[in-house]
Amino acid sequence: MSFTEFPSRLLENAVNEFASLPGIGRKTAFRLVMNLLKRDSEEVKRFGESIIRLHSEIHYCKVCNNISDTEICSICSDAKRERAVICVVENITDVIAIENTRQFKGLYHVLGGIISPIDGIGPSDLKIDSLEEKVKEGGITEIILALSTTMEGDTTNFYLYKRLSKYNIIITTLARGVAIGDELEYTDEITLGRAINNRNPYQQC
Amino acid sequence: MSFTEFPSRLLENAVNEFASLPGIGRKTAFRLVMNLLKRDSEEVKRFGESIIRLHSEIHYCKVCNNISDTEICSICSDAKRERAVICVVENITDVIAIENTRQFKGLYHVLGGIISPIDGIGPSDLKIDSLEEKVKEGGITEIILALSTTMEGDTTNFYLYKRLSKYNIIITTLARGVAIGDELEYTDEITLGRAINNRNPYQQC
Repeated sequence: MSFTEFPSRLLENAVNEFASLPGIGRKTAFRLVMNLLKRDSEEVKRFGESIIRLHSEIHYCKVCNNISDTEICSICSDAKRERAVICVVENITDVIAIENTRQFKGLYHVLGGIISPIDGIGPSDLKIDSLEEKVKEGGITEIILALSTTMEGDTTNFYLYKRLSKYNIIITTLARGVAIGDELEYTDEITLGRAINNRNPYQQC
Repeated sequence: MSFTEFPSRLLENAVNEFASLPGIGRKTAFRLVMNLLKRDSEEVKRFGESIIRLHSEIHYCKVCNNISDTEICSICSDAKRERAVICVVENITDVIAIENTRQFKGLYHVLGGIISPIDGIGPSDLKIDSLEEKVKEGGITEIILALSTTMEGDTTNFYLYKRLSKYNIIITTLARGVAIGDELEYTDEITLGRAINNRNPYQQC
């Protein structure tokens, strides 16, 4: 079924909006809109409003740039978190991923991207100045660089290291190595090479 | 990544709404919401409003029950369409499918479903009375039953035939047979059996 003509412009608009989402084609978009049409009007109104409110009411935390319902996010305002350790991440999905491990008790700093000359993203487009400001103010002992293990991630790590190494702090990165559950046979050679070079005493593992 | 905790209730609400759509899991829903978050606030507002307007402003055609922006849909109000032939379909997606073939110049009648005792849908839940009313008024020469080729579709066809056969009209159904592009080897035996019994002279094909 191709969709050359719609019996209603309202229907067509809604389908076009859904089809603009990543990974949603026009057929899927039409199926989703038909599902909405079958629902209660209250339910559909709530759906639409949840999208509008997402933009009009959401805040970005003034301290770490994480998404938040309030000016300061729930992590930054949590008195139980370790304030001396800051984990630097690319975006808020990384915050959610690390939070779900329940292994990290410090604070975050969301850069809002990584340095990528090919996409025209330089250091000034990211929240790097505010990170340096935090370090300069003192009270921070460790910065964990938790960026992607890509060329851009490595570039950003290097840039951040250069900017922050003059302060009296420890700068660490996430451990690189063979993922848990992976077979050695199928691990790429760079990962395996690093895993051998950075081997740990058995007890630590 | 599992989503046990969200940094924002607004974000969580939007993800839950998207995840309520058919075929959209929580991971996909999160990805879609993150895409919306990156957009202009005007664009997101338009997205949300297109959903709300879908329910608050859309009409169902008074004549054929097709979806429409106006009280009478564009097909029913088109003076060029053949008013004596009515194609009976299950829902509006079928109208769009048949319209896209550009082969049918008559009008439609959308039943709003098919008879399905297992789902508790009986004849009185469908727009069958209004169809009979149209036929009774006269001026109609042919009713085309274009329902699904399922048990429920066959039941509905039979019921409609019983209700409408007393009027002086022709009642037809869509041709059943081997689909164009299908190989005989992989065609199911019922379809192939019907195709042999209802064979056409070569010129007609």
